[in-house]
Amino acid sequence: MNNELDINVDHEETARRSIGARRNPASQEAILDAAEALLRENGIAGFSIEAVARRARAGKPTIYRWWPHRTALMLDVYKRFKNAKSFPDTGTLRGDLVSFLENHLLGFWQGSLCGTVYRAVVAEAQTDKDAAELLQAYQAERKLHSARIVERAKARGEVPEETDAELMIDLVVSFAWHHLLLGQLDEAMNRVPQVVNMILKGVPGYRG
Amino acid sequence: MNNELDINVDHEETARRSIGARRNPASQEAILDAAEALLRENGIAGFSIEAVARRARAGKPTIYRWWPHRTALMLDVYKRFKNAKSFPDTGTLRGDLVSFLENHLLGFWQGSLCGTVYRAVVAEAQTDKDAAELLQAYQAERKLHSARIVERAKARGEVPEETDAELMIDLVVSFAWHHLLLGQLDEAMNRVPQVVNMILKGVPGYRG
Repeated sequence: MNNELDINVDHEETARRSIGARRNPASQEAILDAAEALLRENGIAGFSIEAVARRARAGKPTIYRWWPHRTALMLDVYKRFKNAKSFPDTGTLRGDLVSFLENHLLGFWQGSLCGTVYRAVVAEAQTDKDAAELLQAYQAERKLHSARIVERAKARGEVPEETDAELMIDLVVSFAWHHLLLGQLDEAMNRVPQVVNMILKGVPGYRG
Repeated sequence: MNNELDINVDHEETARRSIGARRNPASQEAILDAAEALLRENGIAGFSIEAVARRARAGKPTIYRWWPHRTALMLDVYKRFKNAKSFPDTGTLRGDLVSFLENHLLGFWQGSLCGTVYRAVVAEAQTDKDAAELLQAYQAERKLHSARIVERAKARGEVPEETDAELMIDLVVSFAWHHLLLGQLDEAMNRVPQVVNMILKGVPGYRG
């Protein structure tokens, strides 16, 4: 984690103009670094654009230009972690779905800042319309991305072309969300193979 | 909805003693009526124990004795609606699960106060430990109750005795929660038959 900023000025106006005018990606990173550091140190409660501005020695208007509210900034901190993770091909759809649940969802949230931050983002989306739209857009994008897992299985011939990839991914993500939001990540981790089995094969012995 | 109270006193102290001492279920109902009326009129934002006390002409300590915080009170308003609903036996597990999703979860939340209130309860559970415990306990109790749907199917011989009723209900509830919290109840309603099919029968043509 890089807490060193490339702006070493104390005067807010100068800092704001210098970051704002350049639109330097390094400065965006610096603000995200400051946001992440604050979240790590103090958690969600005291997190605000004001606090991030102070920490990053940037002007509030600069931050607001890129992130209209604190949820947007939290979601971008979260996304940086997420972007670092790819979907390794385990060779089977079952293996890929287990890995998706264990590494990208439950395990990614477990015992880390990411789970706390994402819970806060979901919470704010329940009462704030802008946060809700951000979260919807992020979810849609992520699900499209994750559906590659099923497309890979189609290419392998494991599932037919007409398989509803979106619904499969939706059920997996829904299960993970539910237990994140209930604070039951450990319990959910223990059920991963059963969840994947039920989605792939249904209820054994079902006669209907 | 009954907004008439059985205490017609304006002086708060008298009201508090009269409700508190009697522990009259009618008075608990009166407070829940007042809470529901406030939620209907003003939504979540201004909802507080103070506002409910004023509306019900009850003392705050009386309300706090039964409901330690506003989330507990919101959850009880929500439960009153929920308790009025039973699980009619449609004759098949598929039919029962479709009805569960359509009537008890998605449809119950859709276009009504219940969805808004439940979203607020889930949101508060993300940052408040007491709210989180309440929600966990409520969910555990509801899932146990809903598992009757699967027990009924076992009795019909539709699924084997060893079927994991808890996991089936969990996947159904998870799907519903996810779309409630994303504000996508309409979209979710359109996918109910596919969701139930995937849980019961898995992915058609899966070879793994």
